[in-house]
Amino acid sequence: MLLPELKQRRDKIRVLMAQQEIDAALITCNVNLIYTYGRVVSGYLYLPLNAPARLFIKRPNTIHGEHIHPVRKPEQLPELIKECGLPVPARLMLEGDELPYREYNRLAACFPETEVLPCGTALIRQARSVKTDMEIEMLRRSGVAHAKAYARIPSVYQSGMTDRELSIEVERLMRQEGCLGIFRVFGQSMEIFMGSLLAGDNAATPSPYDFALGGEGMDPSLPGGVNGTLLQEGQSFMVDLGGNFYGYMGDMSRVYAVGKLPEVAYRAHQVCLEVQEAIAATAKPGVACETLYNMAVELVDKVGFADYFMGIGQKAKFVGHGIGLEINEAPVIAPRMKQELEPGMTFALEPKIVLPGIGPVGIENSWVVTAEGIEKLTLAPEEIITL
Amino acid sequence: MLLPELKQRRDKIRVLMAQQEIDAALITCNVNLIYTYGRVVSGYLYLPLNAPARLFIKRPNTIHGEHIHPVRKPEQLPELIKECGLPVPARLMLEGDELPYREYNRLAACFPETEVLPCGTALIRQARSVKTDMEIEMLRRSGVAHAKAYARIPSVYQSGMTDRELSIEVERLMRQEGCLGIFRVFGQSMEIFMGSLLAGDNAATPSPYDFALGGEGMDPSLPGGVNGTLLQEGQSFMVDLGGNFYGYMGDMSRVYAVGKLPEVAYRAHQVCLEVQEAIAATAKPGVACETLYNMAVELVDKVGFADYFMGIGQKAKFVGHGIGLEINEAPVIAPRMKQELEPGMTFALEPKIVLPGIGPVGIENSWVVTAEGIEKLTLAPEEIITL
Repeated sequence: MLLPELKQRRDKIRVLMAQQEIDAALITCNVNLIYTYGRVVSGYLYLPLNAPARLFIKRPNTIHGEHIHPVRKPEQLPELIKECGLPVPARLMLEGDELPYREYNRLAACFPETEVLPCGTALIRQARSVKTDMEIEMLRRSGVAHAKAYARIPSVYQSGMTDRELSIEVERLMRQEGCLGIFRVFGQSMEIFMGSLLAGDNAATPSPYDFALGGEGMDPSLPGGVNGTLLQEGQSFMVDLGGNFYGYMGDMSRVYAVGKLPEVAYRAHQVCLEVQEAIAATAKPGVACETLYNMAVELVDKVGFADYFMGIGQKAKFVGHGIGLEINEAPVIAPRMKQELEPGMTFALEPKIVLPGIGPVGIENSWVVTAEGIEKLTLAPEEIITL
Repeated sequence: MLLPELKQRRDKIRVLMAQQEIDAALITCNVNLIYTYGRVVSGYLYLPLNAPARLFIKRPNTIHGEHIHPVRKPEQLPELIKECGLPVPARLMLEGDELPYREYNRLAACFPETEVLPCGTALIRQARSVKTDMEIEMLRRSGVAHAKAYARIPSVYQSGMTDRELSIEVERLMRQEGCLGIFRVFGQSMEIFMGSLLAGDNAATPSPYDFALGGEGMDPSLPGGVNGTLLQEGQSFMVDLGGNFYGYMGDMSRVYAVGKLPEVAYRAHQVCLEVQEAIAATAKPGVACETLYNMAVELVDKVGFADYFMGIGQKAKFVGHGIGLEINEAPVIAPRMKQELEPGMTFALEPKIVLPGIGPVGIENSWVVTAEGIEKLTLAPEEIITL
């Protein structure tokens, strides 16, 4: 990746470090290495507030260059930092919400004279929440590829398929369009394979996680997603796969039906599109996330679908979430979220309704906040698609 | 899952807890919840040394039963434990190599009177390293399904394919045979999507991780695996996908060639099969892992392939690894590993050679340690398969 891009990202982190009088960051978790170094390695990016970053690398052994130094173990770091002519930091931040407890303590113990702070995760996530122009371009391309894969879904559907069988074909389409497959989520326990295809009442099965909808899954070791439901007339299904193209996770859902659905499904779907419309017309820099969430709930409430909005028995407590290197970045469009939109933020907006006996309806698109409003990145027909 | 099975697993952990005078464990990471509760939830399995386990569950809100209690946040745990008639623990272990630093500290702070120890991960991994009969049965079924998927590889290969194109088809075969897709690895930074297909010189590209072979990958955000290499005559490729069936990760590699390879490839492949034979003839309860590793290296050295064994420029420092809920469990067949095999251990054995200008050869199978020796779980032809 080009150095000016990396420098811009590192400087976004440095601005936040300066506010908290932190004079260095030690970065070792994959998404943060992608963000600050442009690729995954095994090693440490050392980011001083007032000097160029250094990469201390364990593996692979093929990366060399200015400001890149081999390292075997973290205990060597203070000495290597001194050899670079840099002072040992006074206040150093580590990735306290990502590093395992013992690994964090091992790193902290390498700097006995230093005040070590666990705020690295929160601070870097804050920096990452406003994308650079290049990151927006990556998410834009991700949206195009995602839409291309979904456009081919009708061509792989065959009558008599189960949700699982169709999901496998859709996963293949996504991979063929360039999806890297891996689904990066913040939070060590939130596991999912590529996303979900939810058919009929399976969409109402609650998830152990704070995903929008759940699904039973095929095995108790991986709850969520398909459960073997036959795709049949009168039931809807929703495809909601994560679009990890070029490292950037876009998000997009579309609804399909085998033949005709009961009329209520089209009405509920239309409500979700109206929620999307209303939010898109309101969202712009300076608008608080809770305002958008409350708009959604009021609108859905007014037309009588509140009990089925964002799940039935167990509801997701948001209608949108930031996207980027991970599927759940800031901002979150949720109640009591005072955070205001800023130009360059990117998020998925997913008003969804689950109808008992029918299945899921609604929409999900990825958006970027512009100077004047928000712009859609996942362009594709939004009506319920009849197969 | 049946309670006797879960009780057996919990008691394996309790035996180790008793040795360290630990009177309770608080378990919240997914693989350890699968192990001790049989499924993933969001919540905490509280495992006292001398009383039945309790599940304190956040989500989903649909799980009820004896010894199951709803919880909103971990700060409620001490009170809930008391309400169960259980004492607050004196020495409590947490999953110190899996829980993020801040999450660990939050849990520990809930028990101010308690000595909190981070050894939960190591201790549960030790318990998990010797499988129960049911776990062995799961890995046995996983091996059968894995072999069934690989048997169909020749039917999806088409002339002119790249490694990426074929990999997508093999991923689909694995999914069709029931692979859950998700690839569970111990160690927060080790990421891979389903496994790897490595063709020609791409197999020599070093990985950031301690996987057996690397590969460049399609994007710097996910190094490892395919890089777009055309599958062509004179080059070998190796399929090495993780077999997560029923939650249990088996491991299996096979080598393929488009037409005829140079003679040296067949010789090197035969050496790997001989290494496997030699280890299989020696491995049994009581044999130290380093003994098996040293056998492999000596044998390969004697026939002149040492420089190409387990990679070229950057070599993997093992020839086998434990398998189970994660792809990298104990035992590890590596230098200086004094650990001795025990009946019920399961591991993958993967002697591999990378030949410059040709590609990878060798073999990988999953094995279980029996009373008298080891038994292969992934039964399929082992010669280089000509396409």
